[in-house]
Amino acid sequence: MRTFVLLMCLAVGCLAQVPHPCRSPPLLTGALSVANEKFYANAKYTYDAMLKRIRFKEIGSYENKTFGIDALLLFREGVMYTINHRNKTCKKERLKREDFHPMKIPADAALLGQVILGSSSGPGQGLLVNTWYGEVATPSGKEKDKWMSTFTEFGCIPVSSTYYTDKTGWILTTFFNIVVGIMDPQEFFPPKFCQGTELDETAEAADFYSIFKNLTKYS
Amino acid sequence: MRTFVLLMCLAVGCLAQVPHPCRSPPLLTGALSVANEKFYANAKYTYDAMLKRIRFKEIGSYENKTFGIDALLLFREGVMYTINHRNKTCKKERLKREDFHPMKIPADAALLGQVILGSSSGPGQGLLVNTWYGEVATPSGKEKDKWMSTFTEFGCIPVSSTYYTDKTGWILTTFFNIVVGIMDPQEFFPPKFCQGTELDETAEAADFYSIFKNLTKYS
Repeated sequence: MRTFVLLMCLAVGCLAQVPHPCRSPPLLTGALSVANEKFYANAKYTYDAMLKRIRFKEIGSYENKTFGIDALLLFREGVMYTINHRNKTCKKERLKREDFHPMKIPADAALLGQVILGSSSGPGQGLLVNTWYGEVATPSGKEKDKWMSTFTEFGCIPVSSTYYTDKTGWILTTFFNIVVGIMDPQEFFPPKFCQGTELDETAEAADFYSIFKNLTKYS
Repeated sequence: MRTFVLLMCLAVGCLAQVPHPCRSPPLLTGALSVANEKFYANAKYTYDAMLKRIRFKEIGSYENKTFGIDALLLFREGVMYTINHRNKTCKKERLKREDFHPMKIPADAALLGQVILGSSSGPGQGLLVNTWYGEVATPSGKEKDKWMSTFTEFGCIPVSSTYYTDKTGWILTTFFNIVVGIMDPQEFFPPKFCQGTELDETAEAADFYSIFKNLTKYS
């Protein structure tokens, strides 16, 4: 019996060594940088997986011209606001409700590997992370987008992510200065001057990646 | 007097908050991944800044064809070996001695910023890093290569590096699984079957980046 218990413990121990897809904390405040061959952007974001809403405030450059974007994505209402503080104007677009992108590893993701970013030789010198990859069918179904994401082993915090589409090439996102929690829930309120903005019914419904795909339009 | 000491301490304290260019430990063993739009490579490396030598063993893919490289760079002797274990052959090229690339931040580098990769909300969830950037004049002097490097605040361990040349575009290197020290000093001995290999005097002298630049030749 003792041998059996020991074997069971070993088996469970071995299984526990392999990382399993995880889900990030539901409330996060942090920053990210997004880059590909042509553009570079830094954004502050507030993320609420419970009420499915994200606020992005970003500053970036595209072919050496700078731009700023402030976007509020309310997935429950199916609405995205793009806010122009200078002109005090808003654009209100449809957002695909089902496209809320929770910060989690999809169940069908494959593990590329576990590494220590930096070093394990001293305290504060390294970070234990897991990298996952997979594919996403595009709406047309013709080609598949590819992705690869790195999360911390402890806490399931996003560290970096690469996303490939034929149109954009590789887009590299790095996540930093994250704290678990939200500092101001009013970040998810549209500014007062957005009240009364009519929904643009003509535009194609946006999704999470529209912000990045649209970046090139702001040059 | 006490006030003066207090003010001095405060001044030193404030200066201490701003990261200064640092130098990595002289002996490192680790792994790195190198990628740009066209190729992806994983390499194990052993690095000795005291005797100025680096051993690279890498496996990669270029336009979906895989390749392997084993390179030994002996900067003191001004020689680079490229080792083919399958054929038991070696290529011996000249290496620019002065081009040994110490893992350190150049004194003229500019600080882009200090961030916590991931999160500071829990232990093991984040890594405090400094990012530096600068330019390097190319041999022709016509254009300048650009670089950006991230090192840990504690220990000055490399985490990632991007290097831009007009020819290659952005090359992203990520460093991981680093330990301070060298496990086998014989890693820096050329294999026995390399003895007697004659120096290729005709080829242009290689430098640190030749390994990466040459990758495209191994497709």
